[in-house]
Amino acid sequence: MVGVNKKQVRIGMIGYKFMGKAHSHAYRDVPFYFDNKVEPVLQALCGRNEEGVKEAAEKMGWLSYETDWRKLIERADIDLIDIVTPNNAHTEIAIAAAEAGKHVYCEKPLAMTLEQSKRMLEAVEKNGVIHMINYNYRFAPAIQFAKKLIDTDRLGKIYHIRATYLQDWIMDPKFPLVWRLDKEVCGSGSHGDLAAHSIDLARFLVGEFKEVSGIMETFIKQRPIVESSSGLSGKASSDKMGDVNVDDASVFIARFENGAIGTFEATRFAGGNRNGNRFEINGEKGSIRWDGENMNNLQVYFHDDEPGLQGFRTINCTEEIHPYAGAYWPTAHIIGYEHTFINLMVELMDGIDKGYSPSPNFVDGVKNQAVLEAVEQSSRRKQWVSIETIMQSASSTSV
Amino acid sequence: MVGVNKKQVRIGMIGYKFMGKAHSHAYRDVPFYFDNKVEPVLQALCGRNEEGVKEAAEKMGWLSYETDWRKLIERADIDLIDIVTPNNAHTEIAIAAAEAGKHVYCEKPLAMTLEQSKRMLEAVEKNGVIHMINYNYRFAPAIQFAKKLIDTDRLGKIYHIRATYLQDWIMDPKFPLVWRLDKEVCGSGSHGDLAAHSIDLARFLVGEFKEVSGIMETFIKQRPIVESSSGLSGKASSDKMGDVNVDDASVFIARFENGAIGTFEATRFAGGNRNGNRFEINGEKGSIRWDGENMNNLQVYFHDDEPGLQGFRTINCTEEIHPYAGAYWPTAHIIGYEHTFINLMVELMDGIDKGYSPSPNFVDGVKNQAVLEAVEQSSRRKQWVSIETIMQSASSTSV
Amino acid sequence: MVGVNKKQVRIGMIGYKFMGKAHSHAYRDVPFYFDNKVEPVLQALCGRNEEGVKEAAEKMGWLSYETDWRKLIERADIDLIDIVTPNNAHTEIAIAAAEAGKHVYCEKPLAMTLEQSKRMLEAVEKNGVIHMINYNYRFAPAIQFAKKLIDTDRLGKIYHIRATYLQDWIMDPKFPLVWRLDKEVCGSGSHGDLAAHSIDLARFLVGEFKEVSGIMETFIKQRPIVESSSGLSGKASSDKMGDVNVDDASVFIARFENGAIGTFEATRFAGGNRNGNRFEINGEKGSIRWDGENMNNLQVYFHDDEPGLQGFRTINCTEEIHPYAGAYWPTAHIIGYEHTFINLMVELMDGIDKGYSPSPNFVDGVKNQAVLEAVEQSSRRKQWVSIETIMQSASSTSV
Amino acid sequence: MVGVNKKQVRIGMIGYKFMGKAHSHAYRDVPFYFDNKVEPVLQALCGRNEEGVKEAAEKMGWLSYETDWRKLIERADIDLIDIVTPNNAHTEIAIAAAEAGKHVYCEKPLAMTLEQSKRMLEAVEKNGVIHMINYNYRFAPAIQFAKKLIDTDRLGKIYHIRATYLQDWIMDPKFPLVWRLDKEVCGSGSHGDLAAHSIDLARFLVGEFKEVSGIMETFIKQRPIVESSSGLSGKASSDKMGDVNVDDASVFIARFENGAIGTFEATRFAGGNRNGNRFEINGEKGSIRWDGENMNNLQVYFHDDEPGLQGFRTINCTEEIHPYAGAYWPTAHIIGYEHTFINLMVELMDGIDKGYSPSPNFVDGVKNQAVLEAVEQSSRRKQWVSIETIMQSASSTSV
Repeated sequence: MVGVNKKQVRIGMIGYKFMGKAHSHAYRDVPFYFDNKVEPVLQALCGRNEEGVKEAAEKMGWLSYETDWRKLIERADIDLIDIVTPNNAHTEIAIAAAEAGKHVYCEKPLAMTLEQSKRMLEAVEKNGVIHMINYNYRFAPAIQFAKKLIDTDRLGKIYHIRATYLQDWIMDPKFPLVWRLDKEVCGSGSHGDLAAHSIDLARFLVGEFKEVSGIMETFIKQRPIVESSSGLSGKASSDKMGDVNVDDASVFIARFENGAIGTFEATRFAGGNRNGNRFEINGEKGSIRWDGENMNNLQVYFHDDEPGLQGFRTINCTEEIHPYAGAYWPTAHIIGYEHTFINLMVELMDGIDKGYSPSPNFVDGVKNQAVLEAVEQSSRRKQWVSIETIMQSASSTSV
Repeated sequence: MVGVNKKQVRIGMIGYKFMGKAHSHAYRDVPFYFDNKVEPVLQALCGRNEEGVKEAAEKMGWLSYETDWRKLIERADIDLIDIVTPNNAHTEIAIAAAEAGKHVYCEKPLAMTLEQSKRMLEAVEKNGVIHMINYNYRFAPAIQFAKKLIDTDRLGKIYHIRATYLQDWIMDPKFPLVWRLDKEVCGSGSHGDLAAHSIDLARFLVGEFKEVSGIMETFIKQRPIVESSSGLSGKASSDKMGDVNVDDASVFIARFENGAIGTFEATRFAGGNRNGNRFEINGEKGSIRWDGENMNNLQVYFHDDEPGLQGFRTINCTEEIHPYAGAYWPTAHIIGYEHTFINLMVELMDGIDKGYSPSPNFVDGVKNQAVLEAVEQSSRRKQWVSIETIMQSASSTSV
Repeated sequence: MVGVNKKQVRIGMIGYKFMGKAHSHAYRDVPFYFDNKVEPVLQALCGRNEEGVKEAAEKMGWLSYETDWRKLIERADIDLIDIVTPNNAHTEIAIAAAEAGKHVYCEKPLAMTLEQSKRMLEAVEKNGVIHMINYNYRFAPAIQFAKKLIDTDRLGKIYHIRATYLQDWIMDPKFPLVWRLDKEVCGSGSHGDLAAHSIDLARFLVGEFKEVSGIMETFIKQRPIVESSSGLSGKASSDKMGDVNVDDASVFIARFENGAIGTFEATRFAGGNRNGNRFEINGEKGSIRWDGENMNNLQVYFHDDEPGLQGFRTINCTEEIHPYAGAYWPTAHIIGYEHTFINLMVELMDGIDKGYSPSPNFVDGVKNQAVLEAVEQSSRRKQWVSIETIMQSASSTSV
Repeated sequence: MVGVNKKQVRIGMIGYKFMGKAHSHAYRDVPFYFDNKVEPVLQALCGRNEEGVKEAAEKMGWLSYETDWRKLIERADIDLIDIVTPNNAHTEIAIAAAEAGKHVYCEKPLAMTLEQSKRMLEAVEKNGVIHMINYNYRFAPAIQFAKKLIDTDRLGKIYHIRATYLQDWIMDPKFPLVWRLDKEVCGSGSHGDLAAHSIDLARFLVGEFKEVSGIMETFIKQRPIVESSSGLSGKASSDKMGDVNVDDASVFIARFENGAIGTFEATRFAGGNRNGNRFEINGEKGSIRWDGENMNNLQVYFHDDEPGLQGFRTINCTEEIHPYAGAYWPTAHIIGYEHTFINLMVELMDGIDKGYSPSPNFVDGVKNQAVLEAVEQSSRRKQWVSIETIMQSASSTSV
């Protein structure tokens, strides 16, 4: 009985672990909370392990399942391919989906390399499909509200951003070599996993990066090997040790095109910080602070507040006036992590309805990847690396 | 395809505004996040306005709708009646539902008076149906974890609780006389709406109240009358003013059976506090603090921590080890207000499966109502009022 | 060479422990930080133990010492008697000092009983000497700034105050019966020690109390006896136990003359709260929050801030514009507990210069004592007690 | 009468503005709060303007004054020269003082260049005088306690430090070209003023820097010229504009000798941050956080705390067990900025008594200057710069 008169977008999603669960849940909630003209249908879930994917599909409410992603893409009853696989599968699937005329919604980072991500962008553009990338934190109401403040010049010219994304889940040296620590699967460690989010927030709120100088560091060089590395919390299966080939931490400084400067730090070794996605931005007229662990709040400072009464205001961005917030609960009845996905999907459904690719889309994915790659090169070569140069070098590579 | 092998509980819910939305959403999420043996089915939604209830049913995924609650109760395909009406309808519906052999799940406070609530309890007990009352804040993982700490004697003997539930949504004197400010509909103002939650948390974590001394105050004595008072944010429809007959604020001090003492404050006149459901509890071995606007966190202090290193720990109760948290997202990917309902319903489904009424049930509803009523009497008579006396006086009344 | 052209006020101070140290230090700092026309001279320190007082005088910079306070009061070279003895000595000394024509500056609470405090007020008024009482927290710049906000109607009509003063230093049942737990010496426990401060802040910022209902509770009824109970941290000298005859905690609710209502709690049993002197005040136009453990900050909320941007501002009250702050360090180079004494003494010196008794003076001391006594009677009689009644009953007693 | 049996150190201090006031006050307080064997005597204050220095000497309690620092150094009744002049005068004075056999206590940063600072170190070492540099923040009790935690391996191997020192006092483009914005006088802007403090805390708590890559940026390139630029808050005296030749902000990333990595940011353009000297350090066993605006608190996280109960503890470092704290007030009666100077001077007096130069001394001053200079070179050359290289290059220069 739900949404009988609505246009439907039939989703085919590849992958069903942490991100698959987050996406599945959010699709279900879009029509519950919002009045989009277009609503998602959980058409088919895809995974290689039949037992696993079948069980997940039942649990999460998918109408059918597949075990071969190529088959999924071929299905006529699928409108959009949602890619929540590990990073090393993004490129091939996205390009195939685009070529099959499916809209593509991809997890972040877009790919393993800038070159891959540019090919993905080419594919979606050439085939005229709608595309988005899941930088979900943009869609916290506090962040969207921050964007409005910046766009209406409430902060003035931006001088600084300092962004950190701090976790601590692999600090134990006995934590094994799970797939998220495997360069072949992920491309990088904390860099693509965490720094990518900070880079997206910086691009969204501050502007484009110009150049970077960074360090990528692996504190624990060897870890126990696991036989089956599915899941985040793999258990070591033997005494054998393997080399860790991704970064434990990634820190860099940056100049932006508009003259702002920034510091960035992503790490999985910041004890006590479970999911510390935080930043502060300072402009000539005001400042904002945000902490993803208390994501409903935005702290805002205005330099022209009355003397003696200047200070950061703690604003609970849950009022009707705050983006997306009105769709949920009364003021200060807080929402959580999962709602960032719902809000993003509202835009995705709207884009499909109206025929455009809402931001962040693959263009953002490429630009983000360029910054990621620039930091990697900077760390390797111990030099400043300009984004323009990296974009060009990747271009030539991709030809 | 969802839950094919599960036992189903077919819900009939009466009411579909704020609380109706919260309940509807939570029912949908129970099988998504949890593996209960019993799962809820959104069988029928009931409301007096056919257009309204039809639209709400479609939007929220209910399979059918009714406009007469008596009809709903008679339906054979309904197992549980969920009452999310204004308070003045709770008693009649709950008793009728129990007598029809339906399980009953009721919004808080249980009734308008202690006497009513006792009759409701009698009805569910006599008819052997499962019953619960929706004191949802108990089911924040941080609160459940706090309960575990207390039950395992980590705080020792409790000395103090100081609880506040602070809001500010009716501070404007032009805010009209909506139904929540009407004693005939609600029984009280901030008292039954907000203090009731604090009382429940105190009963859950500290123990039973012994006696209270309190003040109930109405700061704005007259407000504009509205013609249609549906919704929280009614607009004044005329220049006519009406008397406010409920409290704007309720404050009281209390002694508990176990010797603890407490201060309580509920108000809708605490500017800047949008939904400030907060408390601190101090025991001989430790203390805890909680703030519902940042509900994932619990602050914990242990008196026997190493000297020099004693201080409140800020714990993000989102780890596998924290109650219910493992069903959601990785650590510190926070959950929100709506998840408290899901967690409570997990218990409700479990109770129906196993044949018991999980706490908080109507027994808790009655005891809570006794404290509410004791404070009202105390305020009216300007005296200390003991809970035992009030329970007995209400008993005799109800005979 | 310091202050050669200034008028001097020669201080004679009785007592030299915690408060004596705080006063001594503050006198020294007044001319360093401020440009008063009158400056204090540390003329003579008085204590019963000659060795102790001599050592203290040397350490703290007093020019001479006495062992008999009556002698001190007789000295012609003393202009002001500063009483920092335990509470049971305040009355006799203050009255004798006033009768000897000395100005009197007394530690809080003013006396053991309302009747004593009224006699003290009579004495200073009859003898025309300047008098003050040391409710030092008033003189945190944040508090003085809060007062300005209230006096300029920035908060509007006050609805609520909730004040707590939470400590935890005697939670250990083995903590001995030091003088601060002896009713003969102190009059009360946490009540006169801590609640008195909250009452003063409430009187200063909200207005006069009308009536109270309270509980005074002693959680640990017996404690080890000490032979020499000097100092806060006395050690038990034997296995003998003695009865604790003062309160461990004092909680009460109050109505104010202007219609505001309040909750108050003072306790030495709130684990993890070392010196938690805190309050929040809500008015029709705004709210303020303060925490003495972070005393430089004031949180301020304005109800008419721009929609979407309403939230408590955290203001570091260390700017030139904040009262007293300009005398110290650049903005946000914070000051501490001891500076509240300096600021108060600036007013005391000014009062002596200009011939008036700055607030808080003995009038405030009496009114504060009336609230303290009303709470004590309320707790004993389990009734509401009005301040007016208590003032009158004490009057008749004192005749 | 104070300190009659104590050894005295007669201070000659050059400069009497902000830092002169802070030093003067702290000297006065050392014997009040502490029982050092050696106590400072405020012998002579020196400044070029006779009227000004005379007034300051009277106000702050100095026994005499001079207008020529060379004369001061020659005086036989001076044991220690305290240099609180602008940076460009440090070197000449310090070397002259050392050669005159005076102990030297110098404000930070030690000099304008590494080369200068090395010559200063040579001078004090050659002449065998005691020397210290005023990195006062080290002496917050919370920082000293943090050092103890680290030294006793409570944090384990250090992985990260992220340090910021954020101010906002020159954000207004009309703020004039005061001496602190003049390279000839200061050497640098926020870099030597603020980053120097963060570098000192990092060296103290983490270890020696190995290499840095940084940006120094001037956001406002021209400002109004002032005729008399005394004081921080000079007023523009004309419409003439001058070039700003120091940095408004300095950000850098660093590798430490022990493998830790760090991010550093100092700026005067972070609106809302009045004096935001903050850092977090993460080690394999635990983490600490500190914020100078709430300097009494240290946040501490231990990775081996009981599962479910892991979180940052907020510790008010005002207990007897915390370094220096016992000399002041009861627990949680907070101290402030000025007490960091007192604590440092306690060490200085002790060093003079026992014949050693307590840390931080000129060795620390030189090492700090090397990091400052490395960042400057890095910013200018857009390269990583190693501290070892910079130390060697400066050596050769200094020959």
